[in-house]
Amino acid sequence: MNSHAILAPESLAPRLRATRALTLALAGPLSDADATVQPMPDASPAKWHLAHTSWFFETFILRDHLPGYRSFDERWGFLFNSYYEGEGKRIARDRRGMLSRPTLDEVRAYRRHVDEALETVLPKLGEDALTLIDLGIAHEQQHQELFLTDILATFAASPVEPAYIPLPADGRAIHGSADGLLRCARNDGAGWRQGRAGQAEIGTSDGGFAFDCERPRHTVWLQPHAIAETLVTNADWDAFIAAGGYRDPRHWLSEGWAWVQREGISAPLYWGEDGSAFTLAGRIERDPAAPVAHVSHYEADAFARWAGARLPTEAEWEVAAGGEDPWGGNQLDRAEAVMPRAGGGWFGDVWCWTGSAFLPHPGFRQPEGSVGEYNGKFMSGQMVLKGASCATPRGSSRASVRNFFPPEARWQFTGVRLARDC
Amino acid sequence: MNSHAILAPESLAPRLRATRALTLALAGPLSDADATVQPMPDASPAKWHLAHTSWFFETFILRDHLPGYRSFDERWGFLFNSYYEGEGKRIARDRRGMLSRPTLDEVRAYRRHVDEALETVLPKLGEDALTLIDLGIAHEQQHQELFLTDILATFAASPVEPAYIPLPADGRAIHGSADGLLRCARNDGAGWRQGRAGQAEIGTSDGGFAFDCERPRHTVWLQPHAIAETLVTNADWDAFIAAGGYRDPRHWLSEGWAWVQREGISAPLYWGEDGSAFTLAGRIERDPAAPVAHVSHYEADAFARWAGARLPTEAEWEVAAGGEDPWGGNQLDRAEAVMPRAGGGWFGDVWCWTGSAFLPHPGFRQPEGSVGEYNGKFMSGQMVLKGASCATPRGSSRASVRNFFPPEARWQFTGVRLARDC
Amino acid sequence: MNSHAILAPESLAPRLRATRALTLALAGPLSDADATVQPMPDASPAKWHLAHTSWFFETFILRDHLPGYRSFDERWGFLFNSYYEGEGKRIARDRRGMLSRPTLDEVRAYRRHVDEALETVLPKLGEDALTLIDLGIAHEQQHQELFLTDILATFAASPVEPAYIPLPADGRAIHGSADGLLRCARNDGAGWRQGRAGQAEIGTSDGGFAFDCERPRHTVWLQPHAIAETLVTNADWDAFIAAGGYRDPRHWLSEGWAWVQREGISAPLYWGEDGSAFTLAGRIERDPAAPVAHVSHYEADAFARWAGARLPTEAEWEVAAGGEDPWGGNQLDRAEAVMPRAGGGWFGDVWCWTGSAFLPHPGFRQPEGSVGEYNGKFMSGQMVLKGASCATPRGSSRASVRNFFPPEARWQFTGVRLARDC
Amino acid sequence: MNSHAILAPESLAPRLRATRALTLALAGPLSDADATVQPMPDASPAKWHLAHTSWFFETFILRDHLPGYRSFDERWGFLFNSYYEGEGKRIARDRRGMLSRPTLDEVRAYRRHVDEALETVLPKLGEDALTLIDLGIAHEQQHQELFLTDILATFAASPVEPAYIPLPADGRAIHGSADGLLRCARNDGAGWRQGRAGQAEIGTSDGGFAFDCERPRHTVWLQPHAIAETLVTNADWDAFIAAGGYRDPRHWLSEGWAWVQREGISAPLYWGEDGSAFTLAGRIERDPAAPVAHVSHYEADAFARWAGARLPTEAEWEVAAGGEDPWGGNQLDRAEAVMPRAGGGWFGDVWCWTGSAFLPHPGFRQPEGSVGEYNGKFMSGQMVLKGASCATPRGSSRASVRNFFPPEARWQFTGVRLARDC
Repeated sequence: MNSHAILAPESLAPRLRATRALTLALAGPLSDADATVQPMPDASPAKWHLAHTSWFFETFILRDHLPGYRSFDERWGFLFNSYYEGEGKRIARDRRGMLSRPTLDEVRAYRRHVDEALETVLPKLGEDALTLIDLGIAHEQQHQELFLTDILATFAASPVEPAYIPLPADGRAIHGSADGLLRCARNDGAGWRQGRAGQAEIGTSDGGFAFDCERPRHTVWLQPHAIAETLVTNADWDAFIAAGGYRDPRHWLSEGWAWVQREGISAPLYWGEDGSAFTLAGRIERDPAAPVAHVSHYEADAFARWAGARLPTEAEWEVAAGGEDPWGGNQLDRAEAVMPRAGGGWFGDVWCWTGSAFLPHPGFRQPEGSVGEYNGKFMSGQMVLKGASCATPRGSSRASVRNFFPPEARWQFTGVRLARDC
Repeated sequence: MNSHAILAPESLAPRLRATRALTLALAGPLSDADATVQPMPDASPAKWHLAHTSWFFETFILRDHLPGYRSFDERWGFLFNSYYEGEGKRIARDRRGMLSRPTLDEVRAYRRHVDEALETVLPKLGEDALTLIDLGIAHEQQHQELFLTDILATFAASPVEPAYIPLPADGRAIHGSADGLLRCARNDGAGWRQGRAGQAEIGTSDGGFAFDCERPRHTVWLQPHAIAETLVTNADWDAFIAAGGYRDPRHWLSEGWAWVQREGISAPLYWGEDGSAFTLAGRIERDPAAPVAHVSHYEADAFARWAGARLPTEAEWEVAAGGEDPWGGNQLDRAEAVMPRAGGGWFGDVWCWTGSAFLPHPGFRQPEGSVGEYNGKFMSGQMVLKGASCATPRGSSRASVRNFFPPEARWQFTGVRLARDC
Repeated sequence: MNSHAILAPESLAPRLRATRALTLALAGPLSDADATVQPMPDASPAKWHLAHTSWFFETFILRDHLPGYRSFDERWGFLFNSYYEGEGKRIARDRRGMLSRPTLDEVRAYRRHVDEALETVLPKLGEDALTLIDLGIAHEQQHQELFLTDILATFAASPVEPAYIPLPADGRAIHGSADGLLRCARNDGAGWRQGRAGQAEIGTSDGGFAFDCERPRHTVWLQPHAIAETLVTNADWDAFIAAGGYRDPRHWLSEGWAWVQREGISAPLYWGEDGSAFTLAGRIERDPAAPVAHVSHYEADAFARWAGARLPTEAEWEVAAGGEDPWGGNQLDRAEAVMPRAGGGWFGDVWCWTGSAFLPHPGFRQPEGSVGEYNGKFMSGQMVLKGASCATPRGSSRASVRNFFPPEARWQFTGVRLARDC
Repeated sequence: MNSHAILAPESLAPRLRATRALTLALAGPLSDADATVQPMPDASPAKWHLAHTSWFFETFILRDHLPGYRSFDERWGFLFNSYYEGEGKRIARDRRGMLSRPTLDEVRAYRRHVDEALETVLPKLGEDALTLIDLGIAHEQQHQELFLTDILATFAASPVEPAYIPLPADGRAIHGSADGLLRCARNDGAGWRQGRAGQAEIGTSDGGFAFDCERPRHTVWLQPHAIAETLVTNADWDAFIAAGGYRDPRHWLSEGWAWVQREGISAPLYWGEDGSAFTLAGRIERDPAAPVAHVSHYEADAFARWAGARLPTEAEWEVAAGGEDPWGGNQLDRAEAVMPRAGGGWFGDVWCWTGSAFLPHPGFRQPEGSVGEYNGKFMSGQMVLKGASCATPRGSSRASVRNFFPPEARWQFTGVRLARDC
């Protein structure tokens, strides 16, 4: 959190308000019941996201920096603490779906209570507290993405398959052009960007906001390699399936093969056998030219082997994407039925699985106190993802961002960009 | 279902309307979200009970007996079929909590649709169909009880412990007189009713309504025994706990002892360590004189051994209760925070665990068709309970009723009446 | 154990010696390693049976009745106590397969040590202790049967499928005559024995040996019924399979249907798809005329429904078998590859599943002390089996014997005799 | 496997014979039953190790390179294939303990059969096949270590706690000097070796034998750091326990903390509460000055945080150890009760957990065919360990060796060497 840029209340305030407003807008299409359901232990109810992001500000800002602040409800710390051991006991993760009370309206009132207190305290905060506001915004932006992926999982778990927001009246998803399919796996030079080799730097050290795990900036050494200009598409994935990719153990990591067999996996999550996919707009026809999404690290790795390639390392991706605009592309601007679309660039559409485990950057220092639990304690058993997805709030991306999930996770907008040795 | 009494639409109609109205009233205090949550696989969301009881009439009456009847929604058979294999596939039991849609209001509209169709068809029905109406009413009454026990489990699973309906303004549960505690376990004659010995009859053969499993009436042979005049109370149970009852394997069936250790059981379900219990009125002080509730068969059996007694057999209980009024006592009359209360009789307050397994009465015949799945296929791994509880709709009890649950079930209003050999 | 016959050391001694010798002979074909393996938590290693039956005599006789008796090894109580809570802690049931030490030879030495002490003490024992000797013999006979069924399970779990004892040189199992197949399910009178109706008595009260749970003799009331003269055969079972019996939920108890689907059950245990069965003689061709074995209660019940019949109750079976010779038929005489064979009677070949749960006979009294844990604490979740099997030591059967297993158990020699209402 | 050194039959033959002989010698103290038991799915029976290492030579050398070779037993491929999908179906990993047959003697005969064939074919082999012999030797050496750790786990699972080989007659383990305890965690310079910073190389490219995953040699970039001269000791670990290390979530990775709580972990595996440890010599008093062993990656990481340090990366360790003698130290020379001892160096005693995930070296190429499954498919969910242990056959170590286990594994001789940023 040792940010060196000068943070000012005046510049933070509009970003804070916009972030808080977007979260609220995301909940607009949901009923209290929709916002209560938890489809699996990994996903949280929409209501919980709304409240937890407020609890974060209450706990790390208001409690310590607004004299006389009174908690909205003393019991809610137990309900809306996610995983901070330093903040005491909390509801078991897989029981968040028991919270029919408080109601969605009560949670909205909680948000207003916290928002008003933040407006009061913001002009008076010192730099340390402003840094925590900055973190709180970034934290809430992360939960906006989770809000969307979790509500997608929630509606996918319902036999009646509700749409979060139906497609507009023309009634169809826009389909991209499917020429150039499988171009990513071509072995000629076309479609491949030559990566930098030798000494390079990744991570961040500048004064802007970054999560603790993105620091410090440090030197790495890259081997000669190339990285695909485009993402693997649904059509590419159809070819993998048609080639028996899910039935041939030679493509798979041992753990991945065990997972495929145990879970009976034969296609990306949310794919129907009829060429459809379940999306935030309900069940629709798949666009062959759109980037494949909702694949696990195991699937991404197997696809890459099958294609004669490999996943990029975190450093390769980060160096390659260094010159791209992190706020461009298909990212989240408003409450809508986001989904990956054909034709995108390095940021947006889907997060890219890398071949790198989520481990500390050399010299990583975990911040003191509860906020130090943010990332450091999860550096085990997870793989790094880079970029941004269609559900990532625009403005929150950086090349140095390190998203991470266990290798079997599929309910995020996760996809594949190939790399290869040269 | 071979009922011999003459069923007339005129007499069934008011019972049908009253039953349908009570179910709706039970849902009055609930939000859509409250009615959506499923706290455990065994319990169903309130919304589901409302819809399933309507599906039952739609499937077994309207579909076959109302020409031109159109299903409210073709997809809902999948959602609201409970366990009838003959009626096709259905949502997994442990996924009923995913149904944020349809909404509670949509389910209410479904009920109205079905109610109107029933009013139309009722006057025209022949005896077979009227028998099914009778069964549908009894079925819905069973679900009224489950509605209450499941909503109790739902609110107990919430960290904020909502009250279904708070106690009236005087603010306190009525406490009974605690004199005579442990009288049930006295070894002198007081408090024991001498049971009939030798030949006796149980089950029913008369023309009134009864579930298939209550038939046929048949002869049994009873050994000399006595049966307690009153139910085991909370104070009795406190004595069992104080005597180390939950820690001494000698009192327990082998499976029960394994269950106590695996689950860390040390008191009835919903008991707090501070003398409280969680109830439909929220958390309140326990009444020592009230019958103990929410104990498993394992606990009931262990208590009985500790007390030097045993559980009655089904036949002993049924013969003993033959002269009692099955519609008296503390039973369900309206939507309120029902709970066991001191001073009751043989029907009401809590269901009594017996020492009898739920097996077919000699000569039992399973009805043809899907409706034959009602009881017969559950005759394995369950114990019989007799009587009625505070959540049993008044008017639905008979001495011959055979309630049944697995020996570890505790979320029903289940208690203990002792017996002993003479 | 309140046996009233006069037990004399002179009559007990030869039975004790013969029983002890037979157990030892059963282990003859086994290596130390064979005798160490535990194929599943329910089954015990052969070595363990040899030691546990000796521990039983050591603990319940020698410790209390032979002054100055020194335990063979103080640590072995932990190893070879089965489930007696009153005798202290013991190795977890599913870890009995960890006992490569003590060796089989050391266990044999333990047996000699106990046998010699028993010879010393036997002439001096009073009636109570002699009763315990009688129990110890019966206990060891039960373990002889378990020894064989457990070694069958052990060798079935080995990919090389060893034979316990190969068939004699003529090389083939004897096949019975298959005429009259499915006769048991005929609806005419042929093959059915009319059962007694009305008042009858079961259980035992005479002075001979019986397990506690067989007492007391008591009156029951039987409804009119008939019971099949012969056991259901392999050919009958082939017909059930061919008729889709394992795929039609209408035949099955709800728990049974869940079990079939969860475990992927489609035939009796040990059946191959090629008409073979794995037996104590290794894998051999099935005899269509032999009684079906290794079916669960769920399967037995489903077969009976499919055949338009039902399982007999315990009382029906016991009354019907009252006039049969319990020591005749295909039972265990020596160490050999026992298996069910065509043409048998009421005792031997396979245990018959009944439709009765294992619950106490009216007036059952559990003996004082650890020995009281023998049967009483298992009276939950189990079904009664009657008769005897090909692995039951000849001389140990009685019509009143109550064998019991959970409804999914199949590794015993368990089969089916049908009954029906008249 | 693209080894560039010239392999000659004359130099391989004595190494092959010595390796095969040592494996046989390791089994010397075991009975057939000892060699059959499998204490947990991760560990294999001793008998299985003996056979599997022979199957490896049979499958990858004899089958293809010895004309007319006849498999010892066609069925044994199913029994003794470990995880090679390319070699067909195999016994489930957790059922290897069912193999009471073949006997240990039969497995010894299998070894002789393979050894004789290897002697015949060895002089005639070309370079590719000789490379596979080299791999087969290294493979068998790996299994020698597993043999010892698995037999330790086997005897630890026995309530009678047998010693694999008792300590010699002087009766006591040698205890080291305990001065300098916790020196590894001192914050002054003493006991720390300054690591190289900047560009460095790891992995191997020379012509000697190495596993596929050790290649290719490649450049890495190291940050300034220091690495402890000595291993963390039992006394150090006692201090960690005394400081409440196992009860404070702040020291732990999130997955590690969940593991500690779920499994009830409070000390290294095999530690008794009385200051003892279970070892290959049976239960003995712990030496405070000996390196701690049998800790998981989670524990190693938590200890390091508590000590204000961290685990070294793979590259840091490999560069630091580059000048050390990999064949020195406390390693395996003969069948004996090996255990970590005080005073050792960089190779031997215990494998060191690193902070690096087991992922491919840049440019890693998986060999063609089944032998390509050796390491590559396990590059997921595992952490790298470096060095060697007291159970590693002397002569098989290299600085570039990459051992790997899941972060919760503890039954290997695994320990801790600290590092820190400078």
